[in-house]
Amino acid sequence: MKTRAAVAWQAGKPLTIEEVDLQGPKAGEVLVKLVATGVCHTDAFTLSGEDPEGVFPAILGHEGAGVVVEVGDGVTSVEVGDHVIPLYTPECGQCRFCLSGKTNLCQAIRATQGQGLMPDGTSRFSLDGKPIMHFMGTSTFSEYTVLPEIALAKVNKAAPLDKVCLLGCGVTTGIGAVLNTAKVEPGSTVAVFGLGGVGLSVIQGAVLAKAERIIAIDINEDKFEMAKQLGATDCVNPKNFDAPIQNVIVDMTDGGVDYSFEAIGHTQTMRAALECCHKGWGESTIIGVAGAGQEITTRPFQLVTGRVWRGSAFGGVKGRTELPGYVEQYMKGEIKIDEFVTHTMPLEDINKAFDLMHEGKSIRSVILF
Amino acid sequence: MKTRAAVAWQAGKPLTIEEVDLQGPKAGEVLVKLVATGVCHTDAFTLSGEDPEGVFPAILGHEGAGVVVEVGDGVTSVEVGDHVIPLYTPECGQCRFCLSGKTNLCQAIRATQGQGLMPDGTSRFSLDGKPIMHFMGTSTFSEYTVLPEIALAKVNKAAPLDKVCLLGCGVTTGIGAVLNTAKVEPGSTVAVFGLGGVGLSVIQGAVLAKAERIIAIDINEDKFEMAKQLGATDCVNPKNFDAPIQNVIVDMTDGGVDYSFEAIGHTQTMRAALECCHKGWGESTIIGVAGAGQEITTRPFQLVTGRVWRGSAFGGVKGRTELPGYVEQYMKGEIKIDEFVTHTMPLEDINKAFDLMHEGKSIRSVILF
Repeated sequence: MKTRAAVAWQAGKPLTIEEVDLQGPKAGEVLVKLVATGVCHTDAFTLSGEDPEGVFPAILGHEGAGVVVEVGDGVTSVEVGDHVIPLYTPECGQCRFCLSGKTNLCQAIRATQGQGLMPDGTSRFSLDGKPIMHFMGTSTFSEYTVLPEIALAKVNKAAPLDKVCLLGCGVTTGIGAVLNTAKVEPGSTVAVFGLGGVGLSVIQGAVLAKAERIIAIDINEDKFEMAKQLGATDCVNPKNFDAPIQNVIVDMTDGGVDYSFEAIGHTQTMRAALECCHKGWGESTIIGVAGAGQEITTRPFQLVTGRVWRGSAFGGVKGRTELPGYVEQYMKGEIKIDEFVTHTMPLEDINKAFDLMHEGKSIRSVILF
Repeated sequence: MKTRAAVAWQAGKPLTIEEVDLQGPKAGEVLVKLVATGVCHTDAFTLSGEDPEGVFPAILGHEGAGVVVEVGDGVTSVEVGDHVIPLYTPECGQCRFCLSGKTNLCQAIRATQGQGLMPDGTSRFSLDGKPIMHFMGTSTFSEYTVLPEIALAKVNKAAPLDKVCLLGCGVTTGIGAVLNTAKVEPGSTVAVFGLGGVGLSVIQGAVLAKAERIIAIDINEDKFEMAKQLGATDCVNPKNFDAPIQNVIVDMTDGGVDYSFEAIGHTQTMRAALECCHKGWGESTIIGVAGAGQEITTRPFQLVTGRVWRGSAFGGVKGRTELPGYVEQYMKGEIKIDEFVTHTMPLEDINKAFDLMHEGKSIRSVILF
């Protein structure tokens, strides 16, 4: 079949809309018609060429929601008509990682996914007979996409897909990092570096965890209003201080925060996030993705004196098991998503979504198919 | 009064034995007659000049055990004749750190202790009217020493002080890092870098935690026999491999260890210890103390994919509360200490203890007063 898709031909170039060829689902695979997809910083990151795993040409996009239109042989957990959210972190339920009880990082299809391929080592997308790569196992910048069954979370049909698509990445990543990874306790002091979709969702998570003080940090003060609406108690622009931001936060909090989160992807803010933590117990969680080859650095004394450095991917959330619950929480008003959708547009205008992101004017642009 | 003490006059020079003046205990302080003291790498580290907090002249030593001979005003928790282990990490029970339930890093007297002074900002030691500094609040390289009451753990009088002195630092630090900081679970795979007194005690801790596999790593193969006696299942010399040691360990363990410990103080082995941890859940604990200004480095991807980097000081052990229990465990044979004492000598020969350590010939030399 044919599908309309935004193709990334090479790093640093705008996407172009093409009618590409899409092979139907093989065994264990599912054909999904996307209804909506968010445009996330990770898409921009790979498009920039900084992502060491980035391959081209590819169909980007990983924050989608849609409807099952065809299932391959042996697929039993979803059926035609089901509403689904694609999962770039799948959940097979059977690998050593899924069974460990300690991580959401299912490795069942990791190797092929990292190469832009389906689990059988081939691509379903092509143009003029030449393969176009998948991206993060999801490729949601296409009206139709094929995914492994284990990479689909089946969700409530009453949920608006043009909103809950953001649970496919940013919103879940931020909330999950607070609740699943850091396990923030009631009464805690929390700092979040970076107020994009993920950072703002960290604020939501901190509110859900009943944190007492939530310090939002960004150099773009336009983000502060929304941060406060979501529950930030303090907003700080590092540019307003001569001292390093970690010192500023330590001074503001009588010794440092209980939990910090880095949602930018800069190694310097990762260091600042660790070092603004309280001696003896402060824990910092890295969410942002740094460029290829970049390294984090600190004095080991920071850890020996009781700070903990950890990281989080997809908020530590097991997608098939937990994401339907996130959708329910959204339906009950406990998780806010509507506020994150600052722009909507058709697929044809997708490059505008990247522009708005780079200009810091959007939280999330959502593509409506 | 006068006391015989080994004085460190300046960095890098041997200690000299002197008859120094010692003021009696002020309010809240206790005069202790040392029976024995271990000589630990941290003493050598400060003596080398690498310790950013090192001040001279000073009386080093922090791994002692002795008997209370006089108490100052207001001291209620110990009395003359009590057997005690000095604590370089005190436990006031009242500061925010003690009350947090999350750390053993009591801060009640941190500022003065770091300057080599008693809590009132003065030193009790002097020679020819010039002050000699305290060290780590303990200064156990002296026949008599004065300590704050909150820096003394009262222990079973039946315990041999020439053995349990090692619970004042090395043995407790290693065992505590496993049980209190990392909280190793039964069946785990553990790696320990460095087989000095602390690293060997990590092995003891891993055995107590019922770890299934314990990998001991050192470039000095003379340490392997004792490591195996204590419970190591594998001994690895990184010099026998071309590949980085983290890759060797990952290959040996089908993806990495569940818990690793760095007990050397080199930033490169700290990195290796983190990177030999299993994706998704491996946790690395830094115990060793690095030189001034040295920094640890890794790719943030190591953390984002589920590894955790933490540190431990004095094994996360609250000395006054927990150390008496460690002494009881030693008495019951559950904790081994005798095997660690490879050499004993009088105070006059203390420089020999440093030589043996630097030559890698001793686990612990114990000074008998």
